[in-house]
Amino acid sequence: MPTRIFFEIIGIAAGILTTVSFIPQIVKGYRTKNLEGVSLLMYLILTSGFSMWLLYGILIKALAVVVANIFAIAFSVTILIMKSYYTHGQK
Amino acid sequence: MPTRIFFEIIGIAAGILTTVSFIPQIVKGYRTKNLEGVSLLMYLILTSGFSMWLLYGILIKALAVVVANIFAIAFSVTILIMKSYYTHGQK
Repeated sequence: MPTRIFFEIIGIAAGILTTVSFIPQIVKGYRTKNLEGVSLLMYLILTSGFSMWLLYGILIKALAVVVANIFAIAFSVTILIMKSYYTHGQK
Repeated sequence: MPTRIFFEIIGIAAGILTTVSFIPQIVKGYRTKNLEGVSLLMYLILTSGFSMWLLYGILIKALAVVVANIFAIAFSVTILIMKSYYTHGQK
């Protein structure tokens, strides 16, 4: 099914973009050691949402959705941990 | 197809979570008038990614993906505008 493969390439490109988008936030947070302006609640809800997208991707067998959301969960959890550490872990 | 409807409900729940997750960031930014810690590059890449997801959702006819990404684009563009305004528009 070449058409389906083309669709999955679009999906994989979308997944790569939305997933790597968190890297600049992680780098910025690591450099400035300040994620004060970043909403904790946003990343808590986002992590729950990515987990649901992962389940959805598994159910409808959409590979791009599955792979993208595994990485998205890893990055959003990293931001949550960094924010928590920089807020509470330091003087 | 009741099974497909169940899958779409999971997808819609996922879409609602990841989409509404941006609301706390918008509210926090509006209250503090400070989005300095938030990465501009993240939201630029994220908006491009959501646009690709929207295209993917249209191609594979996944309603949840389409609806979620229309809202996601609206919210991420809002954060981009707010960040730009608070950074450059004010003294």
